[in-house]
Amino acid sequence: MAKKEKNKMVEAITSMDEDFAKWYTDICLKAELIGYTSVKGCMVIRPYGYAIWERIQADLDARFKALGHENVCMPMFIPESLLNKEKDHVEGFAPEVAWVTHGGAEKLEERLCVRPTSETLFCEHYSNIIHSYRDLPKLYNQWVNVVRWEKTTRPFLRSREFLWQEGHTIHETAEEAIAETEQMLNVYADFCEQSLAMPVVKGQKTESDKFAGAEATYAIEALMHDGKALQAGTSHYFGDGFAKAFDITFTNRENKQQYPHQTSWGVTTRLIGAIIMTHGDDNGLALPPAVAPIQVVIVPIAFHKEGVLEKANEIYDELKANGIRVKLDDSDNSPGWKYAEYEMRGVPVRIEIGPRDLENNVCVIATRHNHEKETASLENLTSQVNSKLKEVHDGLYERALKNREKKTYQCKSMDEITKALEENGDGFVEAMWCGDEVCEDKVKEITGVGSRCIPFEQKHIDGKCVCCGKEAKCMVLWGKAY
Amino acid sequence: MAKKEKNKMVEAITSMDEDFAKWYTDICLKAELIGYTSVKGCMVIRPYGYAIWERIQADLDARFKALGHENVCMPMFIPESLLNKEKDHVEGFAPEVAWVTHGGAEKLEERLCVRPTSETLFCEHYSNIIHSYRDLPKLYNQWVNVVRWEKTTRPFLRSREFLWQEGHTIHETAEEAIAETEQMLNVYADFCEQSLAMPVVKGQKTESDKFAGAEATYAIEALMHDGKALQAGTSHYFGDGFAKAFDITFTNRENKQQYPHQTSWGVTTRLIGAIIMTHGDDNGLALPPAVAPIQVVIVPIAFHKEGVLEKANEIYDELKANGIRVKLDDSDNSPGWKYAEYEMRGVPVRIEIGPRDLENNVCVIATRHNHEKETASLENLTSQVNSKLKEVHDGLYERALKNREKKTYQCKSMDEITKALEENGDGFVEAMWCGDEVCEDKVKEITGVGSRCIPFEQKHIDGKCVCCGKEAKCMVLWGKAY
Repeated sequence: MAKKEKNKMVEAITSMDEDFAKWYTDICLKAELIGYTSVKGCMVIRPYGYAIWERIQADLDARFKALGHENVCMPMFIPESLLNKEKDHVEGFAPEVAWVTHGGAEKLEERLCVRPTSETLFCEHYSNIIHSYRDLPKLYNQWVNVVRWEKTTRPFLRSREFLWQEGHTIHETAEEAIAETEQMLNVYADFCEQSLAMPVVKGQKTESDKFAGAEATYAIEALMHDGKALQAGTSHYFGDGFAKAFDITFTNRENKQQYPHQTSWGVTTRLIGAIIMTHGDDNGLALPPAVAPIQVVIVPIAFHKEGVLEKANEIYDELKANGIRVKLDDSDNSPGWKYAEYEMRGVPVRIEIGPRDLENNVCVIATRHNHEKETASLENLTSQVNSKLKEVHDGLYERALKNREKKTYQCKSMDEITKALEENGDGFVEAMWCGDEVCEDKVKEITGVGSRCIPFEQKHIDGKCVCCGKEAKCMVLWGKAY
Repeated sequence: MAKKEKNKMVEAITSMDEDFAKWYTDICLKAELIGYTSVKGCMVIRPYGYAIWERIQADLDARFKALGHENVCMPMFIPESLLNKEKDHVEGFAPEVAWVTHGGAEKLEERLCVRPTSETLFCEHYSNIIHSYRDLPKLYNQWVNVVRWEKTTRPFLRSREFLWQEGHTIHETAEEAIAETEQMLNVYADFCEQSLAMPVVKGQKTESDKFAGAEATYAIEALMHDGKALQAGTSHYFGDGFAKAFDITFTNRENKQQYPHQTSWGVTTRLIGAIIMTHGDDNGLALPPAVAPIQVVIVPIAFHKEGVLEKANEIYDELKANGIRVKLDDSDNSPGWKYAEYEMRGVPVRIEIGPRDLENNVCVIATRHNHEKETASLENLTSQVNSKLKEVHDGLYERALKNREKKTYQCKSMDEITKALEENGDGFVEAMWCGDEVCEDKVKEITGVGSRCIPFEQKHIDGKCVCCGKEAKCMVLWGKAY
C-alpha cells in the first residue's frame, strides 16, 4: 500500500502517547461515531456509533430475556414529589437533574424532572401491581435515555443525555434479590469478556461509593489503555428501603403483609467509550468482532482487471450468506486509502484480492488488531474468516489483559503506591484497607487513586491497612477513575 | 369450558356497543398493556404491551434497513433558538412542547424543549456533514421518545410522551426525495396490511392538514371498528424549505452550490391503539400473529392425568423449536379461566389437550378471532399451526376490510353525508371537493367529518364539489378522527 497515503490519513489522529484525551476525541469524530450539536453536553450518535450500540443492545437483551426478564417502558418524567420520596435517592440525584417547568405556554403546577434513573417510577408501578407473593418476582428492564446535568462532558464517557438499560427487579426475599444482583453483575462481566473482549474486575463498592438509596452496590471495573479505571456496569441491592418509602407490600406465604426486596442494574453507551480506550491504537478504533458493524471489509486491488470484481463479489456473497457482516468497498478510492479508512473504523478483518491472487486462487487476510497479513486459499474461506474473527477477539482480550496485569501494582504502603504510579504510570493499585472512610479519603488525597471496588477475588497483600497500619479488613482495588 | 367462569372474567370489560371508549380503556388495562402513573398524560407500557411494540420495531426496522436506512440517535433536547429557525415548524410545535428551564439548581441561559419531533436537530447535523453530492443521500432513522403537551390524553392514541420512529432523509434532487416519501408510505401500508392485518387508504393530506414545514404530507388512514378514522402513519416531503432555513448546501455535479431536498416519516405506539380498535371484540384483544407476543397458548386439560402434561410439553417443545412463540400454561387456574384470560390477551391460537385427546392422538385448535374450534391430528402439528396463524391473519384482515367497506359511504351532497352517518353510524365518506379550504371547513362544521386525505386511488363520485357545487378537483376521504 502507498505509505504516503496512509500517513496522510493517520496524521489526522493525535497519537495516544502524546495526548490520550485528544486521541480519544479524534477517534470519536474521525471514525464517525458521534457529532457535536448545539445542545451543550449532548451528542449525535452517528450511524457507525449507533450500530455498535445496536449490537450491544441485542446481545445483552438476549442474555436478559434468557434469564426471564421482560422489557417495559416508564415515562421519562418524574414529578418532584415522587423523586422526593426516598431520602438518600433524592439527595444523590436532585443536584444533577433537568427540570421541566412549562408545558407549552403554561407553567406546570408541579415541576417534573427528566429521569436520571427510574427507581421512583418502577416503585410507584410496583406498588400498584404487586399484592401477593404470587405476583413476585417481577424482572423488568427498560432501554431508554436518561439525563444527568453534568458540568464537564465527554462523548460516551460522560454526557448530559445518555442511553442505557436499567433493570429493576422485585422479590419475595432478601436472598433472592441478592442472588439477582450478583447474577446480573456476572451477566455484565461475561458480556464484557465474551463480546467486548474486555477483562473486568468484579467487586463491591465501598459505603461511600454506593448508589443513592442502595444497601450494596456491585460493579465491574475495567482498566483502560492509559491506566485509568472505568466503571463499566453496576448492580445494586436495595433491601426493602425503597419498598418502605413507596409503601410496596405484599401478602406473603404465611398470609402476612411484608415488604419485598429490590434490585437495579445498568450499563450505558459508556461501554462504547470503554471499547475505544481498551482496544484502540494510533491507527484508530479496533472493534471486537461481536459488536463490529462491519466484521470483514473486502478491498479489491486493480479491480478494472478481468475477474477481480467478480471474485470479490463472490466472496462477499459467500460470507454474507454465512452470517458474517461484510462490506465490499469497490469505490474509486485507492487501496491504501481504504486500508487506512477501515483501520480507523476498527474493522476486525480485511480481505485483499487482486489479479495475481486470482491466478493462485488465494487472497490476503489482514487482522486489524496486530496488523498481520497472511495469504489464504479461497477454498473454505468462511471457516478461515470465522477463525480469524475468533483470533481477533482472543488477541484483543489477551492484549487488554496483559495491559491490565502490567499496570496492576500491589502495594503495602502509601509510599509504594506513589512510587509505583510515578515509575509505571497510572494503573490499578491492590492494597489493603481497614474499612475506615477516613483512610479511604486519605489514600485518594495523598496518592491520587480512589477506591474502585472491593474485589470478590481477594488477595492477601498484607495484614495491615495501607494507610493507617491498623488491622486490614479487605483488599481494595484503587485507581484513577473516568 | 365453564361458562360461568368465562362470564365472570368477561363482565369486567365494558361492551363495545355500550361504550367504545370505555371498552378501549378496559382492554388497555385488563390485557395489561399499560398502567397509569402519577405523571399526568404519561403511561407505563407494561411487558405485554411493550412486547407488541418490540415486534413492530423489529419488523419495521428490518424493512427500513433493507432499503438502505441507517439508525442514529439525536439529543432529546432542542435549544429554543434552533426550534425557531423554520417559521412554520415552530408555529406548529411551540404551543405543545415541554420546556426545560433548569439544570440542577441553575437556571439555563437558553431554555430547551423536549423534542416533539427532530427535524431541527437532523437539519443542524446535516448542515455539518453534507458538503458534496457524494455525501448524498443520507437515509437516517431513529427510534426514540417524543413529547407533545396534549390537553386530553388516551393510552397509545394521544399521550404526552410516546415512542416512535422518525425517518429523516436528504437528497440531491426533488424527484429522489418525492420518491422516498412515496416509498416510505408504501412501506407503512405494506406493514399495516401484512403484519397488522389492517387495511389502510393511502393518500395526500390537504393543505390545511399538512405537517408544519412540509410541502406535502402523505398519510395512511385506517377505519376503526367504531367507524372513526385513525391516521396510522405519515410521510412528508419538505422540498428545500428546511435546507434554506438551516443553510444546508452542497456542491452539485456541475460544481455549483445547491440546496438539497428532504423528507421525514414516522409511525408511533399509536399503532397499538389501532390494533386494539381494528381487531378487538367484547372478549378483549385479538392480535395479528405477526406481532403477537404469544402466538399459541397450550392449555392442558385435567393434567393430573397420566401423560397429559408430558404431551403438552412435547407440543410446546416442537412448536418452540420451529420458531413459533408459544406458551404452556400449566398453572392451577381452571381451563375456563385460562380460555378467558388468553382471549382477553388476544392470543391468536389456543391448543387444548386432555386425556381423551391423548387416546386419539389429537388435540383441539381454537382460533381467537372467530371463536372456532376444530380437532387436529398431533402429526404434523407445526404446519397445521402455521396454517392456522395464516388463517387468523387473513381472517382478521378480511373482517377489518369488510367493516371498512360496510362503513364507507359515497355521497354527492351534504345531506347525503348527514343521512349516511345518521343511518349507518360513523364511517368513511367518499365525496368530491373543489379544493377550497372554505368548503373543507364547512363540510366538517355541518356534517362532523373532516378531510382525512385525498386518496391516491381516486374514484369519480360526481363532477361537483359536495359542498359548493362548483367543479370538483378530486375525491376526498372524510371521517371523524382519533
